[in-house]
Amino acid sequence: MKSELNRQWILAERPDGLFSEDHFTYQEAIIRPLQNEQFLVEVFYLSLDPTQRLWAETDTYLPAVEIGDVMRGLGMGVVVKSRNPAFQEGDIVQGMTGWQSHVVTDGRSFSQVPANSGLPLSVYMGPLGMTGITAYFGLLDIGRPEAGETLVVTGAAGAVGSIACQIGKIKGMNVVGLAGSDDKCQWLEKELGIDTAVNYRDSNVWQQLQQACPDGVDVVFENVGGKSLDMALGLINVGARVALCGYISGYTKEQNPGCHNLPMLISKRASIEGFLVLDYVHKSREALTDLGKWLMDGRLKYRMDIETGFKELPTAINKLFSGENNGKLLMQINKLPESP
Amino acid sequence: MKSELNRQWILAERPDGLFSEDHFTYQEAIIRPLQNEQFLVEVFYLSLDPTQRLWAETDTYLPAVEIGDVMRGLGMGVVVKSRNPAFQEGDIVQGMTGWQSHVVTDGRSFSQVPANSGLPLSVYMGPLGMTGITAYFGLLDIGRPEAGETLVVTGAAGAVGSIACQIGKIKGMNVVGLAGSDDKCQWLEKELGIDTAVNYRDSNVWQQLQQACPDGVDVVFENVGGKSLDMALGLINVGARVALCGYISGYTKEQNPGCHNLPMLISKRASIEGFLVLDYVHKSREALTDLGKWLMDGRLKYRMDIETGFKELPTAINKLFSGENNGKLLMQINKLPESP
Repeated sequence: MKSELNRQWILAERPDGLFSEDHFTYQEAIIRPLQNEQFLVEVFYLSLDPTQRLWAETDTYLPAVEIGDVMRGLGMGVVVKSRNPAFQEGDIVQGMTGWQSHVVTDGRSFSQVPANSGLPLSVYMGPLGMTGITAYFGLLDIGRPEAGETLVVTGAAGAVGSIACQIGKIKGMNVVGLAGSDDKCQWLEKELGIDTAVNYRDSNVWQQLQQACPDGVDVVFENVGGKSLDMALGLINVGARVALCGYISGYTKEQNPGCHNLPMLISKRASIEGFLVLDYVHKSREALTDLGKWLMDGRLKYRMDIETGFKELPTAINKLFSGENNGKLLMQINKLPESP
Repeated sequence: MKSELNRQWILAERPDGLFSEDHFTYQEAIIRPLQNEQFLVEVFYLSLDPTQRLWAETDTYLPAVEIGDVMRGLGMGVVVKSRNPAFQEGDIVQGMTGWQSHVVTDGRSFSQVPANSGLPLSVYMGPLGMTGITAYFGLLDIGRPEAGETLVVTGAAGAVGSIACQIGKIKGMNVVGLAGSDDKCQWLEKELGIDTAVNYRDSNVWQQLQQACPDGVDVVFENVGGKSLDMALGLINVGARVALCGYISGYTKEQNPGCHNLPMLISKRASIEGFLVLDYVHKSREALTDLGKWLMDGRLKYRMDIETGFKELPTAINKLFSGENNGKLLMQINKLPESP
């Protein structure tokens, strides 16, 4: 191994709105020698996810990232040196790498990625990774869909939302997606085959949504919250289930528009239930088996938005909040390993 | 039977805020002769409930009251004439009488009230009526409390809330109530024996609530919504359940403050579930058996706020929204029948 430096983004300040470069400090650190059971990963993909803004701001389901620590994040890399028999040099691994070019780990949060499946490695950071597992259990376990029911997905063109939409179709639902541009809506209808996509920036979004749900709404897969959730609640049927996956409209306190339609839950004996993919990791094989099959069958499509660069991480993540990303957002920070 | 007139309040206009006399027309109508299977009830108690404002405004779980119809409401009365063998002259009955002094019915929405239990008849419009059944199933079926957990009840001094508080104590919970005056808080702590009552009008309500819930909040019995719900959500534990019984802060559109803390449901894998007592009427015997036993044991206390008058109905109901009532609000519109 060459004596490379570890490039790192350190959390310097807690954001209360969007991220900027001021919230981070760039540094280059010496890579420390391996202890027994440790191995060194050269990271090539970093996953950018809305929840990372929360991790930097406050304690949530995980403690807040400490000021002075490497920013927390999911990544994929190649093992370049190992003193751990379970992880060999050349293995492709995924785990909580953080925002850095190299990580020394004992492997506790890491898992092997199947390198020779014929699929691009990025797919394991998307539909066959946490993204897919989130959509799968959120829709099936919390949403409990039935064929013939109507599903509304907000943030429908997003990484998780677009998979939730397609699982809804596979389960025989009338699937209605809310997305933020005409291009995204066209992709949802023409490429993914959902029943109706509505641009939530349209002035008549409420009328369009009503038309798309003539029999009301039975399941909501909610990524956005606020006005989207209020509109969906305005159409729910008795016994409807809202699977609360994300609330991107409320991740910054000053923007949080609130939800005004909760009384509908009473009239309709309906529920909103939050969930975290972390609670389903032990069941991920079940999800990945189905998702893999659907992917091979061509019934599950996806779009990756892979940026390159390391210095751009603090600003690139904001695309998730402006909706500029097209599909699962990854940052490639090192060259990919060559196929064996 | 004397040829009395039927005094009635007719819905004349839909409210979009609080009720006023302008929304109703007073009329006196001839009482029509009984058909076979019908009986005539002289109504003495009318129940005033927050949901009645919704019934007058819009379609909900029941169709909106038609303009020109007698205002819908639950009442209790005495059978004064009958051509229905199941209901004898002198029987005390409860049902959807509407806001009128007399009602001719075939008995479909009516049930018998035990007249000789030794309890005041009003108890069957309160803790041993819909009020008690609502608190019972909302807390036990939706809240699913465990001994040692913390319960927050909003609108805790109200008719339903005060019973939910006491069932929580019977089930071994740390019970914290939010109410709207120091008098109500004192009643909750000293008379009902809940652990902590907090006056939500206090400027340090959030600090008081935090102190009262050192182990977080596991169950919320929500009658108010808005800021109360946001505070309770700010303290929930993993897996918390919010039983959404009412949302009195949001019953008028212009006042609805919205809920800003829904993202907490994600971090805490928690749920909000709405319910209606109508769905539990078929199981009411189960509730009434327990509630009756607790009442006889002295473990369940209650307070009735019984007003008299008929002309005052349209304005008296607003006490529910200003919080001026003390306990279950009834209007007595005729003299009570003499004990046999």
